[in-house]
Amino acid sequence: MRAVDLIIKKREGTVLTKQEIEYLIFGYIQGDIPDYQMSSFCMAVYFNGMTTEETHALTSAMLYSGEQINLSALTKPKIDKHSTGGVGDKISLILAPIAAACGLVVPMMCGRGLGHTGGTIDKMEAIPGYSTCLNRQQIEDICSRIGFVIMGQTDTIAPADKMLYALRDVSGTVESIPLITASILSKKLAEGADGFVFDVKAGVGAFMQDVAEATSLAGSLVSTTAAFGKPAAACITDMNAPLGRMIGNRCEVAEAYECLGGKMPDDIQEITFSLVSEMLILGNITDTLEKSVKLIKEKITDSTARNLFLENVRLQGGTCDMFLHDKGFTLPENTVAIKARKNGILHGIHACKIGIASMLLGAGRTKKTDDILPDAGVELFVTRGDAVKAGDELGILFSAPHIRMDEALLLAEEAFEIQDKPFVKKSLLLGKIDAHDLD
Amino acid sequence: MRAVDLIIKKREGTVLTKQEIEYLIFGYIQGDIPDYQMSSFCMAVYFNGMTTEETHALTSAMLYSGEQINLSALTKPKIDKHSTGGVGDKISLILAPIAAACGLVVPMMCGRGLGHTGGTIDKMEAIPGYSTCLNRQQIEDICSRIGFVIMGQTDTIAPADKMLYALRDVSGTVESIPLITASILSKKLAEGADGFVFDVKAGVGAFMQDVAEATSLAGSLVSTTAAFGKPAAACITDMNAPLGRMIGNRCEVAEAYECLGGKMPDDIQEITFSLVSEMLILGNITDTLEKSVKLIKEKITDSTARNLFLENVRLQGGTCDMFLHDKGFTLPENTVAIKARKNGILHGIHACKIGIASMLLGAGRTKKTDDILPDAGVELFVTRGDAVKAGDELGILFSAPHIRMDEALLLAEEAFEIQDKPFVKKSLLLGKIDAHDLD
Repeated sequence: MRAVDLIIKKREGTVLTKQEIEYLIFGYIQGDIPDYQMSSFCMAVYFNGMTTEETHALTSAMLYSGEQINLSALTKPKIDKHSTGGVGDKISLILAPIAAACGLVVPMMCGRGLGHTGGTIDKMEAIPGYSTCLNRQQIEDICSRIGFVIMGQTDTIAPADKMLYALRDVSGTVESIPLITASILSKKLAEGADGFVFDVKAGVGAFMQDVAEATSLAGSLVSTTAAFGKPAAACITDMNAPLGRMIGNRCEVAEAYECLGGKMPDDIQEITFSLVSEMLILGNITDTLEKSVKLIKEKITDSTARNLFLENVRLQGGTCDMFLHDKGFTLPENTVAIKARKNGILHGIHACKIGIASMLLGAGRTKKTDDILPDAGVELFVTRGDAVKAGDELGILFSAPHIRMDEALLLAEEAFEIQDKPFVKKSLLLGKIDAHDLD
Repeated sequence: MRAVDLIIKKREGTVLTKQEIEYLIFGYIQGDIPDYQMSSFCMAVYFNGMTTEETHALTSAMLYSGEQINLSALTKPKIDKHSTGGVGDKISLILAPIAAACGLVVPMMCGRGLGHTGGTIDKMEAIPGYSTCLNRQQIEDICSRIGFVIMGQTDTIAPADKMLYALRDVSGTVESIPLITASILSKKLAEGADGFVFDVKAGVGAFMQDVAEATSLAGSLVSTTAAFGKPAAACITDMNAPLGRMIGNRCEVAEAYECLGGKMPDDIQEITFSLVSEMLILGNITDTLEKSVKLIKEKITDSTARNLFLENVRLQGGTCDMFLHDKGFTLPENTVAIKARKNGILHGIHACKIGIASMLLGAGRTKKTDDILPDAGVELFVTRGDAVKAGDELGILFSAPHIRMDEALLLAEEAFEIQDKPFVKKSLLLGKIDAHDLD
C-alpha cells in the first residue's frame, strides 16, 4: 500500500476500505506518512466526502490512536452532550448538573474557545482554583459522587486528532463534514459515555452558517455514532444571536448559576430543556419531552441541580465564593456602554460581531496560544423583540484597565439590528435528528 | 496575505489574482510556505481548475523563479516543439534537424524518460560522448551554427517547477491540466523560443488516455502560451501503438537517422510532417501544409537535415561512428523473439505494455534515480494491418547479458492484438488547435 495511491483513490471518488484508512492514520501518527500527503488527502476528502463506513473507520482509527476512559463501573446511564460552539453558549454548565440531578452520568470532555466562540474549559477555569486537568481516578470518583465532571482533553486522548486538526487548520481543510465528524467523535467516544446528544449550531455565530450544512453535519454525527453501536440524537439550533445575557467567561459562569437557581432566559431554557430531554430519553430515564421537562423543573426547583453544580466546583478544586451570599458577577472597573443608534424594535444581535467584540476585550483568543482575561466580556440588557430608543443602553462592555475598547464598541454597536417593523419570535430549535431518522 | 486563506479561496472556486499566485509560488520556493500547504493547494486546483489568467500567472511565477535563455541575437524564427511523451517517440530527433534545415532555430530543452515513456535526453546520450549539459554560450553558438540544439533542463531553469513537480508526484496531484500546463510552459518559455507547437498524445501509451482530456490540455497549452504573447499550435496525436519500429534509446537514435535518410515509416512521417509544418507556419516560413511538406521533402532528399543531425552530434561532443559506413544499430547478444500467439490481422500493439517491457529490459526507469541501459529495447517487425501467423516473429527484445527477459516477454506478447476482421487504417492526427481556435 502506498499513501499516494490512496490519495488518488479518494481523489477519484473511490470508497476506501477500513484497512486503507487505518494505514493512512496509523502511518501518519507514526511519522511514516508526511504532512504533505495527509493535507492533500484531507483536501480530496473535502471534495469527495466519505461514506458513513469510511467516517466510522476514520473515527475509529483516530479514537484508538489514544486511550479511552472506562466508566463501566458506574451503573447509571452515561450520556454526554456536545455543542459545535457558539457565542454565550454556557449551556453545558447548566445542562450537566441538571442531567446529573435527573439520574444521568455526564462525563463531559470540553475544549477551549477560539476566535469568536467561547469554550467551556475557559469558562470553568474563570472560577478561582477550578481545575479541568483530572486523572482517570478523579474522573471516575467525581462522576460516581455527583454524576458529572468537566474535563479538558489530555494528550493521551485521540492524539491523531490533535495532529490532524493542527494540519487541517493550516491547509484549508477544516470545513469537511466527515473530517469534522471524526474529530469530534474520536474525542467524545474516548470519554466512556454510552450515548450522545449533539447541539449543532447554525447561523452567523456558528461554525456553520447554513442550516442545510448543519443538518448534514448532525446526520453525519448521529449515523457515525450509531455505527459504533451507541445511540445518539442531534438538535440543530439557531446561533444568530448570543445565548442568554452574558458573553465572556466568569460572567457566563455567574449567569449559568443564576439559571440553575430558576432565573433562566427563554433562549437558554428552550435549548437546555430540549437537549437534556434528549439525553434523558437516550438514557431511558424518561420517554417524552413532557416527562423530561417535568423532571428537569423539579430538579431546578428543589435546588438539586444547583447544589450538584456547587459540589462539582468544590470537587474540581474551585472556590464557591462568587456563588454564595448572592454576590453574583462583579463588573470590572473598565466598562463602556453600548448605545442604540436609532429608535425601533430589536430584530437581531449579531452573534459573530458580539463574539469578536468579546474576544477583542480579552475574553477570547485570536490564536490558540493566547491567554484570556477571565473577567472580560459583554452583558446584554435587551433581547430580540424589545423596543429601544436612540441613546438607550443596550449593553455594556467590560475588561481589564489596560484594554482599549473602541474597536470592540464599534463592532458591538453594529451588532444590534434595529428595525421599524414588529419582531416575530421563532423557535431556536431548527431541526432534530435521531438515529432512526437515518434508516 | 496568508497561504491558508488562498487555499480556501481556491477550494471555494474563487479566481486568484496574479499577486496571490505569486505570493504562493515565491513563498514556496523561499521555504516560507510549507509542502503541506502547497499540496493541499494543488489538490484544490485539481478539483476547481484555473482560468487562463490564473494559469498564466502560475506559469509566469514558475518561469521567473529561474533564469531564461536569451536567443534574441539570432534573427531566424525560433520555434520549438514539445511532446507530452509516448512510446517510441523519437520525433524530436527527426523533427529538429528538418525544421532547422527549413530555416528555423529550434532551441529544444528536453527531459528524461520515466515509467513506460522514453525521454529525448536519454536517447541522445545513448550516442557515445554526446552531452546535453550545455552552457548559455554553447547553446547560442550551436543554434547559431546549425539551427538546433538538444539540451537538458538545468537547475537554474524554473526551480519552482522542480520543487512543485516532486511534491505533486507524491501528493496525488499530477493529473491537473493547469498544473501540467504551468509545469511544461515554465520550462519551455525559458528556452528563448518565439513560438511553440505541442504534440499532445492520447491513448494507452500516453500520459492522457482520453482524447477529450488531451484536447483540453492542448487548449490550455495554446491559450496560456498566447497569454505570454507567443504564437502556439497543438496537435492531438494517437499514442495507442508505439511510433516507428524501435523502442529504446540507441536503437531509436539509429531509427531516427534512417528516417532522416528518407526511410520513414508512415506513422513517423505523418506526425513529423504535421508538426514541422505547424512550426514552419508559426515561423512564417510557409503558409500551408502543402508548401511545408514540399520544403521538408527537399531538405530530406538533399540530405541537409541528415547532415545537420550529424553536425549536431559532433558539436554536442558525440561520435558519429554508429551513423557512418551504414553500420546502423548493432543488436546486443541477449535477445529473445516475440512470437504471435495466433493467426490473424494485427489490430493493435499496446504502447503501454511495450513501453513497460522496454523499461523492464533496462531502457527506462521505474524511479528517477535509476540508471538505464542505452542498448536495451524492443524492435517491432510488424505494424498494424499486417497479417500474421501463429509462431511468426513479431519483434525482438534485447538487453545486456545479465537481464532476465521473461516478464518483459510476457508483456510484449500480450501487447499484440490479433483479430480475424480486416484492419482499417486511421490517421494518427486526432485533432489540432491554433490560438485563433480559442477566441
